[in-house]
Amino acid sequence: MKKTKVSSIGERALISRLSEIFNAPEGKERGREGILVGAGSDDCAVLDLKGEDCLVVTTDMLHRTTDFPVEMTPWQMGWMSAAVNLSDIAAMGAEPTGILMAIGMPADTEIAFVEELAKGIQACAEFCETAVVGGDLDTHAELTITGTALGKVKKSQLLLRKGAKPGDLVCITGYTGSAGAALKAIQSKKPVSETVLKALFEPIPRTREARILAESGAVTSMMDTSDGLAMSLYDLARQSKVGFRLREAALPIHPEVREFASGPGELLELALYTGGDFELIFTVNPARLKKVQNICNLTIIGECTKYETGIVLESPECRLTIIEQRGYQQLKAETAD
Amino acid sequence: MKKTKVSSIGERALISRLSEIFNAPEGKERGREGILVGAGSDDCAVLDLKGEDCLVVTTDMLHRTTDFPVEMTPWQMGWMSAAVNLSDIAAMGAEPTGILMAIGMPADTEIAFVEELAKGIQACAEFCETAVVGGDLDTHAELTITGTALGKVKKSQLLLRKGAKPGDLVCITGYTGSAGAALKAIQSKKPVSETVLKALFEPIPRTREARILAESGAVTSMMDTSDGLAMSLYDLARQSKVGFRLREAALPIHPEVREFASGPGELLELALYTGGDFELIFTVNPARLKKVQNICNLTIIGECTKYETGIVLESPECRLTIIEQRGYQQLKAETAD
Repeated sequence: MKKTKVSSIGERALISRLSEIFNAPEGKERGREGILVGAGSDDCAVLDLKGEDCLVVTTDMLHRTTDFPVEMTPWQMGWMSAAVNLSDIAAMGAEPTGILMAIGMPADTEIAFVEELAKGIQACAEFCETAVVGGDLDTHAELTITGTALGKVKKSQLLLRKGAKPGDLVCITGYTGSAGAALKAIQSKKPVSETVLKALFEPIPRTREARILAESGAVTSMMDTSDGLAMSLYDLARQSKVGFRLREAALPIHPEVREFASGPGELLELALYTGGDFELIFTVNPARLKKVQNICNLTIIGECTKYETGIVLESPECRLTIIEQRGYQQLKAETAD
Repeated sequence: MKKTKVSSIGERALISRLSEIFNAPEGKERGREGILVGAGSDDCAVLDLKGEDCLVVTTDMLHRTTDFPVEMTPWQMGWMSAAVNLSDIAAMGAEPTGILMAIGMPADTEIAFVEELAKGIQACAEFCETAVVGGDLDTHAELTITGTALGKVKKSQLLLRKGAKPGDLVCITGYTGSAGAALKAIQSKKPVSETVLKALFEPIPRTREARILAESGAVTSMMDTSDGLAMSLYDLARQSKVGFRLREAALPIHPEVREFASGPGELLELALYTGGDFELIFTVNPARLKKVQNICNLTIIGECTKYETGIVLESPECRLTIIEQRGYQQLKAETAD
């Protein structure tokens, strides 16, 4: 076992091993008093700020070859680097309070490139009504950007992956599968509209929707869909101990993505198993549905069931199939994209 | 100018350009309300927590080839990655409240390696009485670790690079030049003691000393010496608008480093112009010197002068020479190490 490579166990299994090292330091509790949610279980860690607020914080590392399609402009790389982190802040129902950017770049990078990158970062931070507060610059063979975003939220409004109950409705903002369709179009050199490409190149963190949803008091669990809808369902299921039944006909898919897909099989593949969409998936107490229905662009796509029922998709003909646990995962040879 | 490479202007000049993009978004102030200290000027950014506390946060990216000598164990790489960030928290006089670690690694990295790395991170976090609260795992050609550390400090106790006044005494914790001597020893394959090697491989963030110093009320400015003593003096000078006169005979140099150096010239080079020591350099109001004198291991190495006087070193024969503005700097061809 000692010689096992990380690629053979995948990102989530490795996270779980490392979380054990970080969370269980020989039973010592010193230095852990303020930690409400630690490493591994949610989009962000949550720290107690003593008063009514808590601090949420997240970090994400991106690399040029693996995370930025060659068609992306430096501005878009900057935007994306900020967006992945701000989307995690949104996933907790929090309001962003700052972002830090560590940038490693080849020594022969042109200053104009770095300035465009910075402008993209700044534009995304501004869009989310926050600011770049710090960072680090470093030389590195490949462009590498690690962002860290901070946010705050009232403890009473904090949204976790845990909290969904059987009977809750499952909702999603925006569309699913658009970023995946854009990536597929690029890889297969098929034409696709600017709108679909933008979903991949300039994903919009749902920070505004997140705040409205958190304030509504109707949401029982939430996360973002950046690793794909299926992976998100499995993460919510594991933390909340629920199952899910989704209705295929209800999945919000952009008309141009429907047009792009070669058939219903590919469409479903895009909608469920591709990453890159920065939408929010969340569960709503049905008694409080009215509180969220008209406050943001959301679609009800199914409901929470008992854990034992698993995660299933209901076709228009009422046939049930199992939604598989796959999607975007780092460190794994068999990732979907 | 547009085609200029980043290597031609160096880290500090590039930081200053990017800070302009991040700090002046077309005059908009939205999202900037809580920022007490923004990108670029200090070891950490400082955010207002509304109550009496403020939040300090910093991020640092390390790469295997450039930041970890080949002699380092994975445990030491982990320790170091946590230590660079926790040292920045100490530099602000703050108490660490959590650390996040984004790790990019080759897919064929052995799990045992990653686990050792994690244990080193955990050990350093525990030493500083804090914990790893989050992170990210990623595949990457070269091992890359970006840490982010958070801390808190009462606004009244926050220590910045700004605040030193002419007449203040300049102090430093521990020794200067030890990490530089260790690196030199490795590069030139000269033997050196375990103690000196440890200064480079397992640097100790001065988080405890920092808290005591901040609470004393006697310290007027502070930062860490990770980029070298000379660079730190220039950073303090720029922010505080003071000059410095250091006494050569007062510089605290480890006996084994004195023994290692080939002569007084090399000794001074190590003490002033090499990075990697994670000591605190700070200025003290002389009227309050007694408040700090016996609370931690410190050495008075000189005093603050008027800005116009520059940064000078006084030899045992009372001869003054200018301390140069060089040391450890990323993105710069002519870095000292």
